[in-house]
Amino acid sequence: MRLTISPLRLELRDTFRIAREASDVRDNLLVKITDDDGAEGLGEAAPSRFYGQSADSARAALQRLQIPAGTDALLLEDLLEGLRPQLAGQGAAMAAVDMALHDLVAKKLNLPLCRFFSLDPDKVPQTSFTIGLAPLDEMKRKAQEAAGYPILKVKLGTDRDRDIIRTIRSVSDLPIRVDANASWSVEAAIRNIAWLRDEGIELVEQPVAKDDLEGLRRVTQASPLPIIADESAMTPRDVVALRGCVHGINIKLAKCGGLRQAMKMIHVARAQQMSIMLGCFIESSLGITAAAHLTPLIDFADLDGHLLIRDDPIRGVQLRNGRLMIPDRPGIGVQPVTDGGFT
Amino acid sequence: MRLTISPLRLELRDTFRIAREASDVRDNLLVKITDDDGAEGLGEAAPSRFYGQSADSARAALQRLQIPAGTDALLLEDLLEGLRPQLAGQGAAMAAVDMALHDLVAKKLNLPLCRFFSLDPDKVPQTSFTIGLAPLDEMKRKAQEAAGYPILKVKLGTDRDRDIIRTIRSVSDLPIRVDANASWSVEAAIRNIAWLRDEGIELVEQPVAKDDLEGLRRVTQASPLPIIADESAMTPRDVVALRGCVHGINIKLAKCGGLRQAMKMIHVARAQQMSIMLGCFIESSLGITAAAHLTPLIDFADLDGHLLIRDDPIRGVQLRNGRLMIPDRPGIGVQPVTDGGFT
Repeated sequence: MRLTISPLRLELRDTFRIAREASDVRDNLLVKITDDDGAEGLGEAAPSRFYGQSADSARAALQRLQIPAGTDALLLEDLLEGLRPQLAGQGAAMAAVDMALHDLVAKKLNLPLCRFFSLDPDKVPQTSFTIGLAPLDEMKRKAQEAAGYPILKVKLGTDRDRDIIRTIRSVSDLPIRVDANASWSVEAAIRNIAWLRDEGIELVEQPVAKDDLEGLRRVTQASPLPIIADESAMTPRDVVALRGCVHGINIKLAKCGGLRQAMKMIHVARAQQMSIMLGCFIESSLGITAAAHLTPLIDFADLDGHLLIRDDPIRGVQLRNGRLMIPDRPGIGVQPVTDGGFT
Repeated sequence: MRLTISPLRLELRDTFRIAREASDVRDNLLVKITDDDGAEGLGEAAPSRFYGQSADSARAALQRLQIPAGTDALLLEDLLEGLRPQLAGQGAAMAAVDMALHDLVAKKLNLPLCRFFSLDPDKVPQTSFTIGLAPLDEMKRKAQEAAGYPILKVKLGTDRDRDIIRTIRSVSDLPIRVDANASWSVEAAIRNIAWLRDEGIELVEQPVAKDDLEGLRRVTQASPLPIIADESAMTPRDVVALRGCVHGINIKLAKCGGLRQAMKMIHVARAQQMSIMLGCFIESSLGITAAAHLTPLIDFADLDGHLLIRDDPIRGVQLRNGRLMIPDRPGIGVQPVTDGGFT
């Protein structure tokens, strides 16, 4: 098997700000795996500074990766579990490899990935559209422009959180999901959420710090709204540790290391009667479409990373009435936008 | 889709006794599902009195089963989750339907079931061979006859448990797994297990009552040997509830309702760092082979139900050096022993 890595620079439509950072461009990586039969699979790495990753660290880890000779791609379980330790700490790189191998295998079987997973492509939820942090008038404009989407996700974690919500509510009646990105104290979270309930908010993501499970538990006990762990929920074991601390989890392929690990987290969360969101980072339609294949299993889709970039080089999942339409093609089912193909 | 049900009467080589019951014959059911393309799948129901099931109750539930017209068998997740409530309380019947649909789908894809699950058929553990309760001289003879197997599983839960172990140890040096089938008190379990440690016992199954999770926790805390929950572990939610109460779980298809549910239990148990045994009831090579396809994911195989019957009508998994050899054929990969085929 041969692995090739190409840069995938994504320019953002607008500067994207959340509580802890801002960016105008995202440097992702495109990974292609080719097997001895010439079958190909594609994956995307969306490294995240918050998890100590960058395009450079992901690329370095991928360049060192040893895929055993003569590997049978169909035996994904052992193959991926064997590669995972080599990519420890590089979840985005691991996710790219996982996506590429799943794409390759599903193509070999001539099945769209969701059907390979025994999932119904028609059973997909609506996705939210994210409003990043910005001056109030800009957030207002973005909320107006987002009128065609079914659900808004609003980033909070500032000293003007209530003004932000009031401003968006002044121009939009859409359901709003709120994401504090780990930036509130427990006390502030409890106070803010009590206020948010009256503003028609659907749920609240990661109110307090990543490792503050006891804080999450206190917020959840006091909260009239569902509390979803994002930064706190990276692995299946994290989901076990979060039992009783939150109502649900947000799974992202680049965070957990790919589709296979995401599927395991879904099963653990369901057994614990947690609700499940599937989220993303800023990604092209490749990473977003890969994640979309799992959405028949989840409650809340937050797969809009590709909508925040200009000139998406890849065509995949389409939106119809805010619903993710999974391409009816083998594998992940993406195609290059230009005729040149993928490098 | 059409479902047909046939009796599958299995005569035992010897009367099979465990702590709570004895039998000379098992009345299982053979389920065949045929889809609109003429593709076929086979499953076996092994109803268990302990769970309130019988061949009659399983048959009645299966006869009432409504499979929606125009169902796409490949969409197993929704299909099976839709059928599950119709077969509530009839885990063995549900397992038969789940097996038959998995067999059918994997055959359509021309993949052995384990490869459809992305699992390596060569990565299978050794299986234990069970010595049921009987007079001591008979248990001794059975242990001698079982010399060709790699591991013994010995049923306990009598007033002569130590005599049984001493008798078997007098003729066998094989690793022994012990199964009390929920029949000890917590105090007796703690005492017995301390004694068993010195007899070279590998693990202890279900020392105390099914619903006594607190008792399991106390036994586990005191135990120098791994404690495995069997009767207590029927569903993924049970596995969650057992966290901290046992070292591992024993999954059986007829108990949990099939391969799909078993897979979910495996993921939950792994996330909780539990070890996993895959067990069985008295079943033909159909039910045993179906379960064998999941063994690449587990630690302890206890798949010997087909070895305890005479005239197994089905040919499937073979034993080589005590290891389960999964047939390299599409689907579950079983064949009728006689030319007449399956009814």
